[in-house]
Amino acid sequence: MFRAEFESAKNFKKVVDTLATLLDEVTLKIDEDGIKAIAMDPSHVALVSLNIPRIAFDSYDIDEEKEIGIDLEIAKKIFNRAKAKDKLILELDEEKNKLNIIFENTGKRKFSISLLEGVSTATKVPEIEYVNYVMIKGDAFKEALKDAKLFSDFVTLMIDEEKFVVYAKSEINETESIFEKDSSAVLSFECNENAKSSFNLEYLEDMVKGVGSGDVLKIYLGNDMPLKMEYSLAGAELLFFLAPRIEE
Amino acid sequence: MFRAEFESAKNFKKVVDTLATLLDEVTLKIDEDGIKAIAMDPSHVALVSLNIPRIAFDSYDIDEEKEIGIDLEIAKKIFNRAKAKDKLILELDEEKNKLNIIFENTGKRKFSISLLEGVSTATKVPEIEYVNYVMIKGDAFKEALKDAKLFSDFVTLMIDEEKFVVYAKSEINETESIFEKDSSAVLSFECNENAKSSFNLEYLEDMVKGVGSGDVLKIYLGNDMPLKMEYSLAGAELLFFLAPRIEE
Amino acid sequence: MFRAEFESAKNFKKVVDTLATLLDEVTLKIDEDGIKAIAMDPSHVALVSLNIPRIAFDSYDIDEEKEIGIDLEIAKKIFNRAKAKDKLILELDEEKNKLNIIFENTGKRKFSISLLEGVSTATKVPEIEYVNYVMIKGDAFKEALKDAKLFSDFVTLMIDEEKFVVYAKSEINETESIFEKDSSAVLSFECNENAKSSFNLEYLEDMVKGVGSGDVLKIYLGNDMPLKMEYSLAGAELLFFLAPRIEE
Repeated sequence: MFRAEFESAKNFKKVVDTLATLLDEVTLKIDEDGIKAIAMDPSHVALVSLNIPRIAFDSYDIDEEKEIGIDLEIAKKIFNRAKAKDKLILELDEEKNKLNIIFENTGKRKFSISLLEGVSTATKVPEIEYVNYVMIKGDAFKEALKDAKLFSDFVTLMIDEEKFVVYAKSEINETESIFEKDSSAVLSFECNENAKSSFNLEYLEDMVKGVGSGDVLKIYLGNDMPLKMEYSLAGAELLFFLAPRIEE
Repeated sequence: MFRAEFESAKNFKKVVDTLATLLDEVTLKIDEDGIKAIAMDPSHVALVSLNIPRIAFDSYDIDEEKEIGIDLEIAKKIFNRAKAKDKLILELDEEKNKLNIIFENTGKRKFSISLLEGVSTATKVPEIEYVNYVMIKGDAFKEALKDAKLFSDFVTLMIDEEKFVVYAKSEINETESIFEKDSSAVLSFECNENAKSSFNLEYLEDMVKGVGSGDVLKIYLGNDMPLKMEYSLAGAELLFFLAPRIEE
Repeated sequence: MFRAEFESAKNFKKVVDTLATLLDEVTLKIDEDGIKAIAMDPSHVALVSLNIPRIAFDSYDIDEEKEIGIDLEIAKKIFNRAKAKDKLILELDEEKNKLNIIFENTGKRKFSISLLEGVSTATKVPEIEYVNYVMIKGDAFKEALKDAKLFSDFVTLMIDEEKFVVYAKSEINETESIFEKDSSAVLSFECNENAKSSFNLEYLEDMVKGVGSGDVLKIYLGNDMPLKMEYSLAGAELLFFLAPRIEE
């Protein structure tokens, strides 16, 4: 059996939405420590790792480890129906092979979805050393991505001793958002080697879709290396790798 | 002559919107007691009855009974232009065969629409006995319908001694909103016989389109019988019947 | 060199948006007195004249008169990215033949756009005498245009000793917004000759697109004569002429 209560269905929705932008389906590994998932997007450009520790839940009961496959498109539609004060209950119905998603408020709204079979979980998180990182306010970074989108489908991130820069250009126009290391949008900053890499803008936007004001991103950057990004969302820990675009 | 003033054009808009979702045109019977209409939707699945008693108006002058045909598509567009503090004046121009719809605020905005001819009014409200009903908060019921819509175009309503349930399913997923009889969303509850009927979801949604938070629905339910629903909107009394879907 | 600072990028956006609804590109004449432009829309139905006096800027430095051609579609997209507290810096990069549009807030966001060449500026503001005008609240006039749009693509403006009227009709329906000269929406009124002219509704709506509550329009009206309209937006002075529609 598995049954867990989470204080805010609306907050859990952010996690579901973020997964759903990158993945069509996901295998959740549920054990005594909490809920985990690691997966690559269908085109193998981005990797996402999710960890919701047991402590993030109001209550959490499990008898033995489970692996369940979830259709994220359906899950997203359901969580889209969560209201501001709804409490969330997750309940595994092993007999019917279904997951019950329950929103509790003045009434009780129950959604039962069929589990998927045979979704793979073989992916591992790569071990890469980075010598640079910036901790930046999520909304400031999201705005910089939107600026970049005016002119391109790609964005170049750059870091040097003084600043972190988000840059994009079209054939005739260009834009850059400059975050000085002592800017109020930058919470922490370390640069041991000037670095510059370009990325697919749409993937980057998907990775931060659920991020709101108040959330902080930790971005690790190298030279033509994958981007690594970490942040917490509603008690869940999210980690991403995004392959760089090698310009020819 | 006919001339009536109504305090809030924006509130009257809700009544017009509700009629316009189900009907293309309507014949209003205007007499000393107020404004009445009874009509079936074009596919004869739903019946709507409207009664705006004279007392709902700030002023109301009429010389003799009238029947006027209104194009609800045009009426809806016009009432869509009503602003929060607009007062409404309805004025029959019998010479030009037009209805003047006037919004009065700092300025005066007048819309004159041609009356339709030969719209029938022969429909009667059916007399059916029900042994079950639930009075439920309009917005709670609307949310339950939206949940159901995720999985189906049909919805099943069920009542037993304990609860009122809104249920829907797709081939693999299902959802239900459960309203216990002592839930804060339920204001009154009577069940003398367990009952269950299925309905077209779109019609049900249309029937409650103008309902807002604070409005209360009275829903009568039988076994494979039409649904009967009553509520008040801005002083107008609305009554609906909706044919059940007989599953084969 | 040219460099100017403007307090609110968001306010400057209203000016850019208004130009962009009527024009694809514009030539700005920048000199010691400020920034000016005069242009006709591509179909030569409307003329727009812009004047942003030097005093509207927080700082303003220029060495000699410039004429620069701006792609308004790009400019509109960029100003659409302005945030509530962004300060605006305009900076001419004569070496690269670019205009830098900089939004400064906690960070610095810079957009560099290529200047257009050979955009003509030969247009002159016509000198026409009007004996009637009305100063009217911008939002009241905008609402009257929206009412008119329900029934037609054209609108008739009328003025007599008592009132200013915005009128439109379809084959069977009609609408009019009546502004009595002592209405609270009318700030000033002068009528020396009854007048009536019809105009293309879409152009009129474009001309007032950036106008908000609190903004006041001065409308000059004659008989089958162009409409003249003046208003201030964020310290910029805008003037329009719109050719009448001669009904046959």
